[in-house]
Amino acid sequence: MSELRVEQKVLARNDALATANRQMFRDAGVRRAINLISSPGTGKTTLLVATLARLAGRIRVGVIEGDVQTENDAVRVAATGVPVEAVVTGGACHLDAAMVRRAFAALRDRHPAPLDLLVIENVGNLVCPASYDLGEDDKVALVSVTEGEDKPVKYPALFHAASVVVVTKADLLPHLEFDLDLLVRNARSVNPRLRVFVVSARTGQGMDEWVRFLEEGGG
Amino acid sequence: MSELRVEQKVLARNDALATANRQMFRDAGVRRAINLISSPGTGKTTLLVATLARLAGRIRVGVIEGDVQTENDAVRVAATGVPVEAVVTGGACHLDAAMVRRAFAALRDRHPAPLDLLVIENVGNLVCPASYDLGEDDKVALVSVTEGEDKPVKYPALFHAASVVVVTKADLLPHLEFDLDLLVRNARSVNPRLRVFVVSARTGQGMDEWVRFLEEGGG
Repeated sequence: MSELRVEQKVLARNDALATANRQMFRDAGVRRAINLISSPGTGKTTLLVATLARLAGRIRVGVIEGDVQTENDAVRVAATGVPVEAVVTGGACHLDAAMVRRAFAALRDRHPAPLDLLVIENVGNLVCPASYDLGEDDKVALVSVTEGEDKPVKYPALFHAASVVVVTKADLLPHLEFDLDLLVRNARSVNPRLRVFVVSARTGQGMDEWVRFLEEGGG
Repeated sequence: MSELRVEQKVLARNDALATANRQMFRDAGVRRAINLISSPGTGKTTLLVATLARLAGRIRVGVIEGDVQTENDAVRVAATGVPVEAVVTGGACHLDAAMVRRAFAALRDRHPAPLDLLVIENVGNLVCPASYDLGEDDKVALVSVTEGEDKPVKYPALFHAASVVVVTKADLLPHLEFDLDLLVRNARSVNPRLRVFVVSARTGQGMDEWVRFLEEGGG
């Protein structure tokens, strides 16, 4: 079989499993699932920890935490007291629907109560995660102000598949030559329907709006 | 054929082509080839442009510029006057030896003079590029001070395969809670032989040492 055929087969099988995941989440009472995708170093875990602190006692959240190696991020998330299941991909550069299926089953075994929000933190990578549906309701693309404004046009598959962009590390803007409007224009040129949040986990800037969006279940 | 077998076959074929690339570079008079690998947004292209400005008139450099989409980075590099060949992978998350082979042949057709230094800028990705030998002499891993100190342990394959680490955006250190010593310790825990440079393309900090290293052909 050619490599292309193998790849198509892998993606088709993943899509079928992702559809099954969607049903599994619904059956388990998950109100909404989001898939966080960004480069390594954009601050996904830092934002997630700050977000969980704000959501504590308001909605019920569970986390599936993907990494190539180490459970460092899962440990950081677990320290917030939120149920978390680690997926170490052992070299694979993205999560797939089968990994998420197993992780969710393990998470539910330990914490059977319905979740208002399931957060899946993907492996740090702007390319491959865009092709793998995990059964989430929304892909959330994160990009930090220390990255280039042209990321959305250089990695269009992700920004096309995402429904939300979160611009992180906004507290660093005064120290950078970064054109935030240009980033947003570039993102919307790829996908005009993108909802955009600009946040700093460190100073709290923009966090209220982002957290409200998660609490309200989107829309 | 199983996916694993296909992957092994792809990597074996790539390794064979990379060996052929090494011979091709030598035959064409390339003194040294380096492969720049980092996350999207670490500042590979910005560092490269600043480096080329410093090397101008001193050694002969050629660039192969990889991107998933767009030739934006190749345009930025070409503005320095250095010969550059763009490779748009069209979705693939890494360069491979075959892409580099074609790009180098095209570059040499247009600029037949021997090169002191061939720089291959890979697609922004910390995972897959580590597995694909392109025929380079050195893999150079870049990590910016805005990323986490644990990148080397979270992405060990790259830091294991690399011989050099360049820490970028050092001018931002005063505005961050970033432990540079911890990053270097983490990198050397994965690979004790790593040579480390700490630079800022914006202020010029550390650039003399980095450029001298490139001029002297390593060692």
